[in-house]
Amino acid sequence: MTMTQSAVTNPPIHTLLQTRWSPRAFAPTPVAPAQILSLLEAARWSASAINVQPWSFVVVPKDDEDAFARLFGTLAEGNQVWVQHVPLLVLAVAQQQREPGKPNPYALYDLGQAVAHLSIQATALGLYVHQMAGFNPDQARSAFAIPEEYVPFTVIAIGTLGDPDALPEPLHTRELAERTRKPLASFVFGGTWGQPTPLLADVDQAA
Amino acid sequence: MTMTQSAVTNPPIHTLLQTRWSPRAFAPTPVAPAQILSLLEAARWSASAINVQPWSFVVVPKDDEDAFARLFGTLAEGNQVWVQHVPLLVLAVAQQQREPGKPNPYALYDLGQAVAHLSIQATALGLYVHQMAGFNPDQARSAFAIPEEYVPFTVIAIGTLGDPDALPEPLHTRELAERTRKPLASFVFGGTWGQPTPLLADVDQAA
Repeated sequence: MTMTQSAVTNPPIHTLLQTRWSPRAFAPTPVAPAQILSLLEAARWSASAINVQPWSFVVVPKDDEDAFARLFGTLAEGNQVWVQHVPLLVLAVAQQQREPGKPNPYALYDLGQAVAHLSIQATALGLYVHQMAGFNPDQARSAFAIPEEYVPFTVIAIGTLGDPDALPEPLHTRELAERTRKPLASFVFGGTWGQPTPLLADVDQAA
Repeated sequence: MTMTQSAVTNPPIHTLLQTRWSPRAFAPTPVAPAQILSLLEAARWSASAINVQPWSFVVVPKDDEDAFARLFGTLAEGNQVWVQHVPLLVLAVAQQQREPGKPNPYALYDLGQAVAHLSIQATALGLYVHQMAGFNPDQARSAFAIPEEYVPFTVIAIGTLGDPDALPEPLHTRELAERTRKPLASFVFGGTWGQPTPLLADVDQAA
């Protein structure tokens, strides 16, 4: 069986945002090529500072065995445990320099936005996304011949939900744990830093 | 009259992602408090590296005249021209250090994701978002007493669509121009950097 982890939100948010979640239990079913293209097209239409679109993606379906082995080999061991069953990996890369010596300070922020769009498109297609910072960027740069002005930043696992009972501990327990976030009052302020906005007066969120 | 700018996408993407767009023509109608809370709640449930949630938001509705003047004063002149009519500004802030001297390299990427979620929730509510890098972060830090380990990163304009004919040139022309993005083939690669993935063989996108 599979399980979903819809966030308990107050106030309400759109279903796509509420049900987006980063599982570790994936089914091995391949992601259809048309779906992969929609994920990338969603990233493509993300916003970016002066529309420079500082993102690139290396797309690695599991059946591309050679490339999959190269990207999988960059992952932290704790990630390899569950990623071995994932049918699609994408390496997300930021163009941190527009040209050598000309940094783009918005590159990571904009890459994050593009990957968020990809994730929400995935949710709309019944797919799930788990982004990983736990990989070796230098090894990824070398494995895929990524030029100096680009930075390999996250590896994205994509697929349909698998059986959480197939996960070893402690991943199994983590998969079933309630999703948590800080309360709004801890990071949303009014006219002064650290002061709650009056908007939050009626919102009840335990810390 | 107002106009929308839905992206022409191939392959298809979800309507929320297709119709999200950064206008400059905003109507002065205030954003309802319940809607503001939903925007923030959407950001709250975004993903982040080891769930540290390195984002903060200073929420400034136009009727908070003192705070609005302080934030508006940080904006580049070219932005002030159109932002004067915007009913809601939000200053997006990244916690770049978990504690002094302990940087979080994922802070900007994760802030970008949270703002993308906010933008998509806005679209679901019939609102539009225009993110601005064109402001003075030092002035914003001082105006809102933002601590050293946090970085004011973007100012977000939020509201409903206004009449593009009320915009001065060159903003008016820019508002009506066709939205553009690089073709997928220029930033999506297969097993080798710079080599197109076979997935794109049937996608027709002019450069």
